[in-house]
Amino acid sequence: MHQQREVVVCVDAIGGDKSPDEILPGAAAAVASDESLRVVLTGPEEVVAPFAESHEHIEAVSTAERIDMDDHPANAVRTKKDSSIVVGCRLVRDGAAHAFFSAGSTGACMAAATLHMGRIKGIQRPAIATILPTAGTPVVFLDVGANADCKPQHLVQFAHMGSAYAKIVLGAVDPSIALLNIGEEPTKGSQLTQEAYALMSEEVPGFVGNVEGRDIVSGSVDVIVTDGFTGNIALKVLEGLSESLLGQVKDSLTESALNRAAAMVLRPSLTRLRSRLDPDTYGGAPLLGVSGVCIIGHGSSGRSAVAAGIRVAAQAARGGLPSAIGETVGARS
Amino acid sequence: MHQQREVVVCVDAIGGDKSPDEILPGAAAAVASDESLRVVLTGPEEVVAPFAESHEHIEAVSTAERIDMDDHPANAVRTKKDSSIVVGCRLVRDGAAHAFFSAGSTGACMAAATLHMGRIKGIQRPAIATILPTAGTPVVFLDVGANADCKPQHLVQFAHMGSAYAKIVLGAVDPSIALLNIGEEPTKGSQLTQEAYALMSEEVPGFVGNVEGRDIVSGSVDVIVTDGFTGNIALKVLEGLSESLLGQVKDSLTESALNRAAAMVLRPSLTRLRSRLDPDTYGGAPLLGVSGVCIIGHGSSGRSAVAAGIRVAAQAARGGLPSAIGETVGARS
Repeated sequence: MHQQREVVVCVDAIGGDKSPDEILPGAAAAVASDESLRVVLTGPEEVVAPFAESHEHIEAVSTAERIDMDDHPANAVRTKKDSSIVVGCRLVRDGAAHAFFSAGSTGACMAAATLHMGRIKGIQRPAIATILPTAGTPVVFLDVGANADCKPQHLVQFAHMGSAYAKIVLGAVDPSIALLNIGEEPTKGSQLTQEAYALMSEEVPGFVGNVEGRDIVSGSVDVIVTDGFTGNIALKVLEGLSESLLGQVKDSLTESALNRAAAMVLRPSLTRLRSRLDPDTYGGAPLLGVSGVCIIGHGSSGRSAVAAGIRVAAQAARGGLPSAIGETVGARS
Repeated sequence: MHQQREVVVCVDAIGGDKSPDEILPGAAAAVASDESLRVVLTGPEEVVAPFAESHEHIEAVSTAERIDMDDHPANAVRTKKDSSIVVGCRLVRDGAAHAFFSAGSTGACMAAATLHMGRIKGIQRPAIATILPTAGTPVVFLDVGANADCKPQHLVQFAHMGSAYAKIVLGAVDPSIALLNIGEEPTKGSQLTQEAYALMSEEVPGFVGNVEGRDIVSGSVDVIVTDGFTGNIALKVLEGLSESLLGQVKDSLTESALNRAAAMVLRPSLTRLRSRLDPDTYGGAPLLGVSGVCIIGHGSSGRSAVAAGIRVAAQAARGGLPSAIGETVGARS
């Protein structure tokens, strides 16, 4: 077996709706699948210490504070310095870990990573990306909520960051990059997208032009760039409609005894479909533009989503994601 | 049977991918279902005249020009004065018809209606709404593309217009109205949504606050307001994902002989589901804010979608939609 470079991923043991019950086995599954991977758990002594003692390749760093989902992110990060999220980001900054994974508060992870890891030189705004399953190859879609108001130059940087992620984590060769817009022609759209189109045409290698909302799930490009307001709305529409549609299909399949019998036959196929559509396959949402790897899992992450997130964090760290982003942006600023 | 007020709907016979083949029977079905409804078809003599001669309650107005989907909308409307779309809008302006329906170019319909019917006094920007099927009651969602860049005051007017439509066409009593945003709290979102939230709280009766992208299909409110860029992206995401998901479910159901047999049993339930989700049920997208009723059908409209669109146009005309909008906006400006 090819020996990979050893990498240490710090994992927030108490982030997410199902923490720590699903986080701990997720961490164990991740280290079991990669012999060069170590995990450092941050969280309360009584949660992380016994688990680390009984598991090889897992260490514990005890923390005394907890950032909750309803805490104000920036305030919580400033005041709760001994929380699992703040300590995790500081471990990365200090070089004790190569990456951080949390299924906790997105806002707090963003604030802590930006404050403690710092922004990559030249990056104006870190952005949150999501990796969406499509009919074709997965697509890196960003920004999905870090920046509600964007300038054209921000979108250009999002393109560079998304492209680096597609290369390093998804293995895309020469990633194709599109701008989300309300028409295909360069002159379509808002003032923001019209100006961004012009800039991206000049500055972004692999830029293929505009795509529309229906193309997000078609898998025709590797990276789709938008502002954080539009991206968040689009992502939530996708999540809401997927749940609603699959729920209604399920209701149809179980509305009579005959239907239920027929549905039994179809269950394996429909389960495969559901898992193919599961965004957790791609391991959570990377925060791009900070000087370290930070992957934010869905609040509802179960153990397999946690394991996937840790593996993606390791891969991004091994591939040198932050320095790759720094080089692209540095070369152009 | 209750005798309704007679109403004349002008129908573009040559608008849409399936025109005139699906438009003409759609018009016939609409008049057959409502004895106080008359249709005036606009289109080439050889298309509209024979059909009108052989059908009661259908008349024909011959036009010599055609606006194509790839014509520049505003230019086409200015230069092709004898086109089915321009003539249709002028018939409404002149009082010869009460409403106009077309499944042709959205941009051309918008330009022609704005130019020839005119804006309602006090309305700054007409908007295009779409009526979405949800798990609950249908929701009026606007703007879905007329205005890529909006000011807060525009969103306030969209709220009034959407509310009037929900009352008159969907029968909503005291419609509830929400602002599409990326968080529920008033302080969330872009500069536009934060300012719009404050204005809507003061000026819009029935305003219930922010909803997120996932709430668009939940049916929890009657009207959801957004700018035309975000609205268009959200609508296209909904359309693209619905097709993609239902297509993948269909593929799963037919991937083996056993699955196909089971799927036969489920077909009636799944067909009911599909028709419940079909947006054509609600008859196309109303252009709100112009001094006349204008309903724009999907380009792919078949005969039942055309009939639904004509019925909705008749209902909006009978309910006095433009004057209801004028009264709400006039009372506040």
